[in-house]
Amino acid sequence: PNQDMEKQARRRLDNLTKPPGSLGLLEEIAYRLAGIQGQVLPQQAKDKLVIVMAGDHGVTAEGISAFPQEVTPQMVLNFLRGGAGINVLARQAGARVLVADIGVAGKALSYDGLISCRVKSGTDNIAHGPAMSREEAIKAIETGINLVQQQVTDQLALVGTGDMGIGNTTPSSAILAVFSGLEPAQITGRGTGLNNERLQHKIKIITQAIEVNRPNREDGLDVLAKIGGLEIAGLAGVILGCAARQIPVVIDGIISGAAALIAHSLAPLSRDYMFASHLSAEPGHRIMLDLLGLKPVLHLEMRLGEGTGAVLAFHLMEAAVNIINNMATFTEAGVSQG
Amino acid sequence: PNQDMEKQARRRLDNLTKPPGSLGLLEEIAYRLAGIQGQVLPQQAKDKLVIVMAGDHGVTAEGISAFPQEVTPQMVLNFLRGGAGINVLARQAGARVLVADIGVAGKALSYDGLISCRVKSGTDNIAHGPAMSREEAIKAIETGINLVQQQVTDQLALVGTGDMGIGNTTPSSAILAVFSGLEPAQITGRGTGLNNERLQHKIKIITQAIEVNRPNREDGLDVLAKIGGLEIAGLAGVILGCAARQIPVVIDGIISGAAALIAHSLAPLSRDYMFASHLSAEPGHRIMLDLLGLKPVLHLEMRLGEGTGAVLAFHLMEAAVNIINNMATFTEAGVSQG
Repeated sequence: PNQDMEKQARRRLDNLTKPPGSLGLLEEIAYRLAGIQGQVLPQQAKDKLVIVMAGDHGVTAEGISAFPQEVTPQMVLNFLRGGAGINVLARQAGARVLVADIGVAGKALSYDGLISCRVKSGTDNIAHGPAMSREEAIKAIETGINLVQQQVTDQLALVGTGDMGIGNTTPSSAILAVFSGLEPAQITGRGTGLNNERLQHKIKIITQAIEVNRPNREDGLDVLAKIGGLEIAGLAGVILGCAARQIPVVIDGIISGAAALIAHSLAPLSRDYMFASHLSAEPGHRIMLDLLGLKPVLHLEMRLGEGTGAVLAFHLMEAAVNIINNMATFTEAGVSQG
Repeated sequence: PNQDMEKQARRRLDNLTKPPGSLGLLEEIAYRLAGIQGQVLPQQAKDKLVIVMAGDHGVTAEGISAFPQEVTPQMVLNFLRGGAGINVLARQAGARVLVADIGVAGKALSYDGLISCRVKSGTDNIAHGPAMSREEAIKAIETGINLVQQQVTDQLALVGTGDMGIGNTTPSSAILAVFSGLEPAQITGRGTGLNNERLQHKIKIITQAIEVNRPNREDGLDVLAKIGGLEIAGLAGVILGCAARQIPVVIDGIISGAAALIAHSLAPLSRDYMFASHLSAEPGHRIMLDLLGLKPVLHLEMRLGEGTGAVLAFHLMEAAVNIINNMATFTEAGVSQG
């Protein structure tokens, strides 16, 4: 980002008819966008889209999810037909929904409108070995990067990240445990709705996955390959692709957050293009965002994924742009300064 | 609200293609609106408006604000010309901005588009006596109720509360101190931007105002008259008027929150029509919302007032309505339930 433009944007914000800083994080979003776009007055995104990566997880064999694996392709179809939460919220936001099969279990899905970019038919069971090979992890990341290159053609784009994959809070919590150094028990949540007993089991499986695989936290690719997921890898690629193109990318919940941790580990400067959206009901999410130095603006106790939180936050990104462009200055309005 | 419709709405939400409860507070907003509108599928508001009440405060003589009192009428003019934060955000939300002079200091303002409903030319200095008489407090509340009756003609309305009044975090914090029983030091903030020394002075003035006036917390009208403000009274009336008309009312920051505490004290059931918007940077705001049992959905560290937080939250109210109306059910989408 252009630091001089950020500074000029901050100066403009301080001259608008309000106490300095009183629009809080909206002001921060506004000057960050000024830096990213390289102009004092950032413009509204012309192309808004949410990229939903779908992948399956071998670790579901351990009974760590409240829903069966067949739900992943069923929900992919629901996305394509427009009936899911992300579709409803994306329509409200005026955003396109791109749905990509990067690794749903079983045979390749062939649905109209689906982007097929399968690296593997679901990950292997991380409770007993690596999720995927290092080469597959690289390929999945590149898939995400390429998707941004191909699909995001307008420089004034705004991208949200979304996920679908039964069982994917398990690898996400495992990734967070490794990067934060915290015990899985401190950061693991109920996902789509586990009871206490099954939550304890999930914690045990995450602990086991880390013990069996011994991921090296200094090597993001190692963490990703050993205890990650294909959609997590793809979303890490989406984030890196956005950073490379200087496009702001809004991070959804804990699966997208795990992808952001991987992206940040591989390319720390990518963080400059990340914007947090909501604070999930998952207990690890706040820790994850703290590690990234991002502040969630929506506190809705959501835990759906799909990019629902990201796309809801688009409204606030747009509000920030409206504020810096359209509010009167003290001089223009003839208002006394404090 | 119609409890049967709330129940039916909750049932519908549980049948939509997502884990039960996974859309968090959006689901709560959706079923609360179902109860308020008396239909399982709540409809989008047809008339959205934010009511900005402007009033002045005699206590500014004590130097408790970073801005001079002349800013109140200057900002009223800014509102009418469309250059303020609330105008920008209301335009984005598609909401009308109603600006009412309920007690700006000095001579009556005569601006095109301004609703003049002055009860008094600013309050008296609460550091030395009551803000207003009990009769004036009643009149100011009635003014707010009448404004809703006159201006909000569509039953499918959505109202936000907003304020303008230099110095008005002082009476708001005083009201919170009385209702919460907490020490002013625990809940008083920097308002538009006081330094440490002036913050300490503000706390001293609030403590003094409570000692001098001895408001009776069992009597909301007494609290309002003794240590309140005219715009706070008017907004309490707006909230009561919305409750009476069964119109959802979105509460802005700590000034609107103080009005909500007064409204709740006078008519506890009015709480059923209140929706929280943002969590302000003011330290007392969370305590205020806890007293009301309301959860803020936006965490933007804002402290501007004017209704800016309320109008930003309209988007989330609309998202909730979209979700319950437009998402596919498990059966419709052929998705397995957990």
